[in-house]
Amino acid sequence: MQKNIVVIEGDGIGPEVTRQAVKVLNAVAEQGGHEFNYHYCLMGACAIDKTGTPLPDETIEAALNSDAILFGAIGHPKYDNDPTAKVRPEQGLLKLRKSLQLFANIRPVTTYPSLQHLSPLKGKILEDVNFIIFRELTGGIYFGKKELNAEGTQASDECIYSREEIERIAHLAFKQAQQRRKKLTLVDKANVLETSRLWRKVVQDIAKQYPDVKVDFLFVDNAAMQIILNPKQFDVILTENMFGDIISDEASVISGSLGLLPSASIGKGSALFEPIHGSYPQATGKDIANPLGSILSAAMLLDHFGLRTEANKVREAANWTLQNGFVTKDIDPINFYFTSTIGELISDYVSGKTPGDI
Amino acid sequence: MQKNIVVIEGDGIGPEVTRQAVKVLNAVAEQGGHEFNYHYCLMGACAIDKTGTPLPDETIEAALNSDAILFGAIGHPKYDNDPTAKVRPEQGLLKLRKSLQLFANIRPVTTYPSLQHLSPLKGKILEDVNFIIFRELTGGIYFGKKELNAEGTQASDECIYSREEIERIAHLAFKQAQQRRKKLTLVDKANVLETSRLWRKVVQDIAKQYPDVKVDFLFVDNAAMQIILNPKQFDVILTENMFGDIISDEASVISGSLGLLPSASIGKGSALFEPIHGSYPQATGKDIANPLGSILSAAMLLDHFGLRTEANKVREAANWTLQNGFVTKDIDPINFYFTSTIGELISDYVSGKTPGDI
Ligand SMILES: [Mg+2]
Ligand SMILES: [Mg+2]
Repeated sequence: MQKNIVVIEGDGIGPEVTRQAVKVLNAVAEQGGHEFNYHYCLMGACAIDKTGTPLPDETIEAALNSDAILFGAIGHPKYDNDPTAKVRPEQGLLKLRKSLQLFANIRPVTTYPSLQHLSPLKGKILEDVNFIIFRELTGGIYFGKKELNAEGTQASDECIYSREEIERIAHLAFKQAQQRRKKLTLVDKANVLETSRLWRKVVQDIAKQYPDVKVDFLFVDNAAMQIILNPKQFDVILTENMFGDIISDEASVISGSLGLLPSASIGKGSALFEPIHGSYPQATGKDIANPLGSILSAAMLLDHFGLRTEANKVREAANWTLQNGFVTKDIDPINFYFTSTIGELISDYVSGKTPGDI
Repeated sequence: MQKNIVVIEGDGIGPEVTRQAVKVLNAVAEQGGHEFNYHYCLMGACAIDKTGTPLPDETIEAALNSDAILFGAIGHPKYDNDPTAKVRPEQGLLKLRKSLQLFANIRPVTTYPSLQHLSPLKGKILEDVNFIIFRELTGGIYFGKKELNAEGTQASDECIYSREEIERIAHLAFKQAQQRRKKLTLVDKANVLETSRLWRKVVQDIAKQYPDVKVDFLFVDNAAMQIILNPKQFDVILTENMFGDIISDEASVISGSLGLLPSASIGKGSALFEPIHGSYPQATGKDIANPLGSILSAAMLLDHFGLRTEANKVREAANWTLQNGFVTKDIDPINFYFTSTIGELISDYVSGKTPGDI
């Protein structure tokens, strides 16, 4: 298999974690006889510094012509602390998402026994938690008409969804459910909202094409409770933009560390893979950042290429490091390993070079 | 003080828990020389059975002319399991809320050391959690214009807020904050929504009238994380209807039991006080339901009358029962006390008849 991957390392810890993911992708390529061509592009503060804009046209161009984009993180304190700054690193990512029409944001939530001490939830609740949230990303109230009357005394936001917007992400979610435990939960507020009733109708229609997938429906307020009370009940969660924003952030804290959560954003053409963590400027260049978010994003990229066995091998390798105490400073502040060491261990594992017994 | 209280016992466990709350109110009245006149009214399945309607006009009339309403719970399985039923118990409550124009729903979230074993969160996180959520209840996307096009391919919901709708609940929340730890957190999505920006503007304007209250702002997705990660940071949370629905339900699970959570709904005229739990038909008549939700709702009713010392005494009594293992079956399925016994103990405590050492 030959694939073109745009790599956007970005700012802060972006470059150092992304390099570990590339290391792992290289190990996968070598093992399977694949050819991954990397095209390094600029975005974020580093792009502003070098070109004056957070997202150079060349990056958009390359991204549109790629098979996938591997992205690190962007953001720099010199812009955060300057409220007068007209150009901001974050604008780059928003514009890239828009250019690529990334309509589905996908976030797996997995728990690891070795991280239970970091989770706010009790260990018993964390066992066997493994679900994935599909959040619609380009519609809903975030993009509807916004109005403020002339006197500034009344404001409105419109939430609007079309059948087609719901269908395209619903098909992705159903296909994912078929590859997993075959359960899909639509989170909505159909007892109140017209848009939610359309979501429910469309999902019920589409469900007929996936008879092996069991579908259920959950109101968003109940979902916010269930994610804490009994997260293992979920397999694939599908939801609209705002509900997805809230429940995916809520769900992100249960694993105990944001440092190892990956994400994918799927568009009509290309797809983008990134850890959910930020650029973490304080840790920059210290080789202490957790590379698992980026490495597990690379695993999702492999899934996207149809390389499921390889993707699972990478996840297995990540698990193996966690189980054996090969963790970064955020997980164990006393006995920790460097970012680059974890990347090395995981690429070695993928290459079959695991130390037999540790 | 002389006050007229409408008591709506409702269905299921409603009557048996409400009776304990009335017992406690009677103890308060006797101690302080107050006169509480109770007017018992029908609502829910019992009202349908007796009058054919879930909310007789006489109940609305009495509620509108009362100083406060103490409500139990409504709902009966014979209606839940009959999809053809045209008249439903729940319609009574919706209509009553509308008739009374209850624009603010208020939910305190408190944790108790003796309930830690029931909470999904770790004990360390639960220490000193004590906050109160003010949710706007009559505006926002739940009541905005709803549309579905003729082809059924596009749906929309409008979220709309006026300055006046925000002001009236904001004043309530600021006044509550002044009586507490003097911190108010507005939960919104001002980086995306025009309505949220109006909320932020109005709250900033009103804050000038409450210079002793520290105000901060939190995006709703971050709030959904913080409620799990560090709930003790909150004192008073103020938010719009939908965000309030989601985060108040999320927050309700952290104490470990829905059975002891009270709520208040404030309107222009009257105010309604009710436990957040439902009618729990399986437990009806067994004297096993937890009366603390209703008793603590009665404490909020006393607050509403300005009887803060008395309200705190009721809360102290409730705490005392929990600390001494006087709990219902939902808290301790082995060594449990009856609903009526807990009511007796709390009214005795309020009357100064506490057993000295247990
Ligand atoms: Mg978010
Ligand atoms: Mg709710």
